[in-house]
Amino acid sequence: MKELFTKIMQGYEGYTIGKMLCYISDPKIISFAGGLPNADVFPLDLIRKAAETSLKQDWDQVLQYSAVPGENDLMEAVIDYLKRDDIHIEPENIIITTSGQHGIDLVGRLFLEPQDLIVSDLPTFGGALASFEMEDAKYIALDIEEDGSDVKGMEREIEKSINQGRKPKFIYVVPDFQNPSGITMSLEKRLSLLSLGKKFGIPIVEDSPYRELRYRGETIPSIYSLDKNQGNVIGINTFSKILCPGLRVGFNIGPAEVIQKFTFIKGGNILNTPKLNQDICTAFLREYDLETHFDKIIKYNSEKLNFFLQAMEENFPEEMGVKWTKPEGGLFLWITVPENINTTGLFYKAIEENVAFVPGEVLYPKDLRRYDSMRINFSYPTKEQIAEGVRRLSKVIRQHQAQR
Amino acid sequence: MKELFTKIMQGYEGYTIGKMLCYISDPKIISFAGGLPNADVFPLDLIRKAAETSLKQDWDQVLQYSAVPGENDLMEAVIDYLKRDDIHIEPENIIITTSGQHGIDLVGRLFLEPQDLIVSDLPTFGGALASFEMEDAKYIALDIEEDGSDVKGMEREIEKSINQGRKPKFIYVVPDFQNPSGITMSLEKRLSLLSLGKKFGIPIVEDSPYRELRYRGETIPSIYSLDKNQGNVIGINTFSKILCPGLRVGFNIGPAEVIQKFTFIKGGNILNTPKLNQDICTAFLREYDLETHFDKIIKYNSEKLNFFLQAMEENFPEEMGVKWTKPEGGLFLWITVPENINTTGLFYKAIEENVAFVPGEVLYPKDLRRYDSMRINFSYPTKEQIAEGVRRLSKVIRQHQAQR
Repeated sequence: MKELFTKIMQGYEGYTIGKMLCYISDPKIISFAGGLPNADVFPLDLIRKAAETSLKQDWDQVLQYSAVPGENDLMEAVIDYLKRDDIHIEPENIIITTSGQHGIDLVGRLFLEPQDLIVSDLPTFGGALASFEMEDAKYIALDIEEDGSDVKGMEREIEKSINQGRKPKFIYVVPDFQNPSGITMSLEKRLSLLSLGKKFGIPIVEDSPYRELRYRGETIPSIYSLDKNQGNVIGINTFSKILCPGLRVGFNIGPAEVIQKFTFIKGGNILNTPKLNQDICTAFLREYDLETHFDKIIKYNSEKLNFFLQAMEENFPEEMGVKWTKPEGGLFLWITVPENINTTGLFYKAIEENVAFVPGEVLYPKDLRRYDSMRINFSYPTKEQIAEGVRRLSKVIRQHQAQR
Repeated sequence: MKELFTKIMQGYEGYTIGKMLCYISDPKIISFAGGLPNADVFPLDLIRKAAETSLKQDWDQVLQYSAVPGENDLMEAVIDYLKRDDIHIEPENIIITTSGQHGIDLVGRLFLEPQDLIVSDLPTFGGALASFEMEDAKYIALDIEEDGSDVKGMEREIEKSINQGRKPKFIYVVPDFQNPSGITMSLEKRLSLLSLGKKFGIPIVEDSPYRELRYRGETIPSIYSLDKNQGNVIGINTFSKILCPGLRVGFNIGPAEVIQKFTFIKGGNILNTPKLNQDICTAFLREYDLETHFDKIIKYNSEKLNFFLQAMEENFPEEMGVKWTKPEGGLFLWITVPENINTTGLFYKAIEENVAFVPGEVLYPKDLRRYDSMRINFSYPTKEQIAEGVRRLSKVIRQHQAQR
């Protein structure tokens, strides 16, 4: 039947990280590869109680088809929640999604014709790459800098490409604690990125799953809030990192004309998001002590991060030529190794030593791959696993260097 | 921002029935328009208990990301469940979806390039039309006959189109109690459709949400079972009509190479289906008395159907020229009015008389629309509503005829 698949699907292999994870199901392996929040910080009691209430109160509506854009209760709760982040929107500016991944996919389906251009950082989020690859996207992608996107480079490249008759469809960024690099975009760059988008009439897609997870430094306004509802930004958000990933609920915000089309697409794609799952998110926003909850997550994750950074200092002396980012929040950091080391090859050697990471390769668009980096998740492993895992990682790299 | 949308999305309006439903939120209106199972037959106790158990036993896995293809427990439970229908498959032949609509959308994304051909009945399921429209599909569509698809006509048209260098990508059918017509495909036609698919190397997509809901007559083998795992059929299934729609869980079955690609697409689309929702479906299949449950639904719905058919007899004497199907199961029947009546126009008049239906128009592909029919759901309204609603419907049509 293969010959009947579309051309792009014949070569499509999906979300590459997912496939890597199957190599590391062995419990002996210490994994820095996942993108998992730790279950220690899931508000289990709230979730249990909210599920029970939802199936008691209006169970007949819960178990029936429900509105495609989402439950009014949840949309209103999100609208109120966003005010704390200086985002002020109306119901016509929001759609509930069945996860952040779903939110990204809606963007791809609405904007991308085959071979259309996306502007992005290098590296960037693997899930976005997987989704946009289904639409046969091409990239203007520039190395991310210490303070975020290379906005000047983007301007130059966009201009060049418009002159060639190819205007990019959107600029995709993760400004806060980017997955995979852990880098945060400065206020200055957020403002210039916004101006850049306006100048060329290209929307900014701001993917923001980690924003609440800041462990040090000052919160920087989101690009969405900086735009002050002028309609230049589409925001992608999720409950996965602030509540839990398993419920599969998120939300997109943006101009009404975009949200309306997302609703149409969602209707043909999956219809509604389960009301049971939405009700739990509503209870979380309305009934839970969010400040205390976020403080708990922040304390938990930042301890892990500090512990990880300390282990790196101890195990990677300068002469090894290994560098790593020092994120101010989020779940990931990014390790760069000397160019003569191929981290995809290293991955299989690391597995033999019972430690795992995500080879950087899969976090670049297909035709722009690089092999000198790796993504590290520090939130899921225990402190003991971090200490031992970083030791093993250092050992694997030393062995590799010694063989050359 | 509209000018940046893809060409097909600029004109896309989604699942048209959904938009009609917003006209009929007034509780005074008796609606035959929805496609809703009645909440009276939802197994509420089972669902409550299963949700509680899921959030108690392995809550940390329930709230975490989970496997994209689906939970092993549920896939095994479905594999066992399908044996009662003489379908014998392996885990590589199944993917859990986030609803039947999602299962349809996966098919469209895997197979359809812009302007690709689908073979289907006229009329056909509106959700499928909405999903395939996103891929810019075109149709070879033939009037459905009393015993199902016009297989001979399909053969002729497929041949013609292959001679013109355009081989259709798949044949989409709902063989059991088709939505919207209520018509069931005969065994003879199922076998010839299967031969037809094999002859031309075109897969059959068998959408089967209502199969268990047979109220009279003998069960006819599914096309999937008739194929005996030769890999010519993709089955689309859902828990919506046998358990409840609100959980948003379904499953696709088919050749391993197709299921693998569905998994990749699902990964870039929404990642996993929520485990909580899957666990409830597993409990339903493993712990519930399915025979008694199905008997209950069948008794409930068939009483409604008989009552509806009787009301039609009483209110539509032959001279009115109105015809309707007499389904053996499912949730829908199909009314055809004399050609001088436009049912889309009639819809707004009916709303004024507080009765609603789905105008047939929206159940045809965009360039093949017809206006002399309507879809009726008989399972959701009460008997009293059916009696009164059919009276009103007859009145509206009489008034319309008198004015001409």
